[in-house]
Amino acid sequence: MDRNSPDSPEWFPELQNPPRLLLGPGPSMVHPRVLRAMASPLVGHLDPYFLQIMEMTKKLLRYVFGTQNDLTVPVSGTGSAAMEAALANVIEPGDAVLICINGYFGLRLADMASRYGAQVRTIEKEWGEVFEPDEIQAALKTNPAKVVAIVHAETSTGARQPLAGLAGVVHAADALLLVDAVTSLGGLPVEVDQNGIDICYSGTQKCLSCPPGLGPITFGPRAVEVLVGRKTQVANWYLDMTMIQKYWGTERTYHHTAPISANFALYEGLRIVAEEGLPARYARHERNARRLWDGLQEMGLELHVPEAHRLPSLTTVCIPEGVDGDVVRRRLLDEYRIEIAGGLGALKGKVWRIGLMGYSSQPENVVLLLAALKECLAGA
Amino acid sequence: MDRNSPDSPEWFPELQNPPRLLLGPGPSMVHPRVLRAMASPLVGHLDPYFLQIMEMTKKLLRYVFGTQNDLTVPVSGTGSAAMEAALANVIEPGDAVLICINGYFGLRLADMASRYGAQVRTIEKEWGEVFEPDEIQAALKTNPAKVVAIVHAETSTGARQPLAGLAGVVHAADALLLVDAVTSLGGLPVEVDQNGIDICYSGTQKCLSCPPGLGPITFGPRAVEVLVGRKTQVANWYLDMTMIQKYWGTERTYHHTAPISANFALYEGLRIVAEEGLPARYARHERNARRLWDGLQEMGLELHVPEAHRLPSLTTVCIPEGVDGDVVRRRLLDEYRIEIAGGLGALKGKVWRIGLMGYSSQPENVVLLLAALKECLAGA
Repeated sequence: MDRNSPDSPEWFPELQNPPRLLLGPGPSMVHPRVLRAMASPLVGHLDPYFLQIMEMTKKLLRYVFGTQNDLTVPVSGTGSAAMEAALANVIEPGDAVLICINGYFGLRLADMASRYGAQVRTIEKEWGEVFEPDEIQAALKTNPAKVVAIVHAETSTGARQPLAGLAGVVHAADALLLVDAVTSLGGLPVEVDQNGIDICYSGTQKCLSCPPGLGPITFGPRAVEVLVGRKTQVANWYLDMTMIQKYWGTERTYHHTAPISANFALYEGLRIVAEEGLPARYARHERNARRLWDGLQEMGLELHVPEAHRLPSLTTVCIPEGVDGDVVRRRLLDEYRIEIAGGLGALKGKVWRIGLMGYSSQPENVVLLLAALKECLAGA
Repeated sequence: MDRNSPDSPEWFPELQNPPRLLLGPGPSMVHPRVLRAMASPLVGHLDPYFLQIMEMTKKLLRYVFGTQNDLTVPVSGTGSAAMEAALANVIEPGDAVLICINGYFGLRLADMASRYGAQVRTIEKEWGEVFEPDEIQAALKTNPAKVVAIVHAETSTGARQPLAGLAGVVHAADALLLVDAVTSLGGLPVEVDQNGIDICYSGTQKCLSCPPGLGPITFGPRAVEVLVGRKTQVANWYLDMTMIQKYWGTERTYHHTAPISANFALYEGLRIVAEEGLPARYARHERNARRLWDGLQEMGLELHVPEAHRLPSLTTVCIPEGVDGDVVRRRLLDEYRIEIAGGLGALKGKVWRIGLMGYSSQPENVVLLLAALKECLAGA
C-alpha cells in the first residue's frame, strides 16, 4: 500500500468503538466475562482442550434448549445460518413445507425453504398476531406437509407465539415441528422436549448475550430420522449436519475449522446462564419487560402487541402520530449512546423495537431508556 | 439445572486455555492486538461506526487481495463458507464446472459444486503436484466449462500452484477463474487483478492471523456479470451475494447480523498487514519457511513437495519410516505445547503439516519447533 496515497495505512485508524447501550433487536450487550473469553488465546480446533469445551457446550446448550437431544450444537454462522441449517437438512426437492408467517422472519423461512426446492405453503396473520393450533391443523388437512415452521419470538413484531399444543397437531399430521427461537432462547422458556419441538435454533447475540457469529441448533429423534433417511445429499455443504455431527460427535472428523473464539465465548455465556439458572433468568426478563411496558404506557405510548402475546425480550412501540421515528432513534444514539431499532417490513416507519435481552435486561437500562426517550420525544 | 446433579453448573469450569504455539494448518497464532480487538465492546450491525469499519475493511481487503473489485467483503463464516459462496453464486443447475484436484480441498470444491447442480468435470494430479496452464487448456477443449476452480495453496499437500498463465487459457475458453487462497492470502502474493482471477476467497485464521470465523471473498467484473445475469436464485440464502452486497454496499439493507467482533478483529488484523506491508510480509514468510526447510533437511527429514512448488505458509514433511507420526505430534503438544498436524486424505499417516502463517511465522518459532521435533524424534 502506497504510504503517500490517501489509502495508506495511516488512514486506517485504531479501533475506537463508541460506547453503546444496545437495546435493539440484537446484538444485545455482551457480558464482560464473555468479552474476556473472546480474547482468550486460541487452541486448535482438534486440540484435546477444545474437544472438552465442545462437550461441555453441548451439555449446556441442551440445558438451555430444555432437551435431551444428542444432536445439539452451535453451527458456525449467525442465527440466519442456523435457520438455513434447520431447513436445508430436512428438506429434499419437492417436499411440502408449511410456513406460518406473521412477520419478517416467517417470510425469510419461506424464502429459504423455496431455495431448497420445497413446495412452500403458507398461512398468514397480521404482523403482531399469533397462530392457534387449530389453524395449523386446518391448514395441514388441506395441505399436508413434511415440516411446519413457526417463529417463537418474532423479532420484527414482538409477538410471542405460544408453543403448547402445536406439536400435537403437527405430529398428528406426521410432520416435523420446526421452531425459530432466535429471540427467545435463554430469555423465555423454549422447552424443546416438553413442547415436542423437532428442530429448534437460535442465535448467540440475543438473550444469550454473546457476540453474533454462532447459531445453536438442536435436532430431535424424529428430525434425525428424516436426516439420515434422506435420498439426496444436503444441498448446503457448510451446514450439512451429517458431516457437522461427525466433528461434534465421537469421530472428530474435520469438516471446517470451528470459530474457536466464538465457541469459547458461547461456553462462557452459557455458564453465566446456568449460574443464574433459567427460572431466575426468565423472571428477570419478564420483570424488566413489565417495567418497560408500564413506563412506556405511562408516557402515553402504545404497544403494538397485546399483553397476552407480548415478548419480554423484544417490545414494539407504536411511533406516535407526527413523530419521525428515525430522528428520535438518531437522537437516542447521538445524545445518549442508546441503540434501539426501527420497524422492519410491514412495520417499517410504524414502530420502534426495544430489546431487553440477556445482559441488556437490567432495571437501570429500563429507567435510563425511559428517561432518555422522554427527553427525545419532548423535543420531537 | 439441578445443582445436585453431576450436570450442575459447578461442573462447568472456567475457561483455562492451555498455552499453545499453533504451527499447524490453522488456526495460526492470533496477534495480541487482534485478540484485544475481539474483546472490544460491541456496537450494532447498522451503527454508523460499524459502517465505517466495514468500509475500511473492504479497502484493506482489496489491498491484500491485490484488486480493485468493488465486491470484496468478508462472508460471515469460515474459509469453507467462502468456498461455498464462491461456487454457489455463479453456479446454476446444469452448469459445467472444471475442478483441478491435487489435494483435499480440490475434492471439497467438487463436492460442493455438485450440490449446486453443477456438471462437475475434474482433472487430477498426484497430491503435492501442480497444474500447467496447457493441461487446463486441453481439458477445456474437450470439456468446456463455465467455471474453472483451482487451489492456490493446497493446505493438505503444501503445494503452491503457480497462478501466472491460468487466466489466459481460462478466459480464452470463456470461463471464470476461481481461486482458493485460503492458505495464501496475506502470506504470499495472490494478486487477483494481475493474475486475472475472477473469484478468490480465503479464511481469516491462516496468514491473516485472526481467529477463524470470517471468509474474505472478492468477485471481479466478469463474475459479477454472471451473478447479476442468473436465471435462478442463488441456492444458498446465507451466502447469497446479491443480498450480502446490499448490506456491504450503499443500501445497508439488513441481511443477517454481521459477526461484529470478528469483523473488528479482521479490521485490526488487516491494519497489521498494511503496517508491515505486503512485500515485507511475503519476504518474512519466505525467509522463515526456508529456515524451517533447511533445518528439517539437516535433521535428515524429507519434504513432500519439491522446492519449486513449495508453499512458504505450509510445509509437508514425510514421516520417517518406522516413526509413529501421531505419537510425535502428541509429544510435541504435551511436552512442548506446540501444535502441528498430521496428513489429510491421501497423505494421512504419511506427512506432518507445519504451518508458518502470519504471526506464527517467526524465527523463534522455527528454532523452537526444530529443537523440540529433534527431541521427540530421538525418543521415537
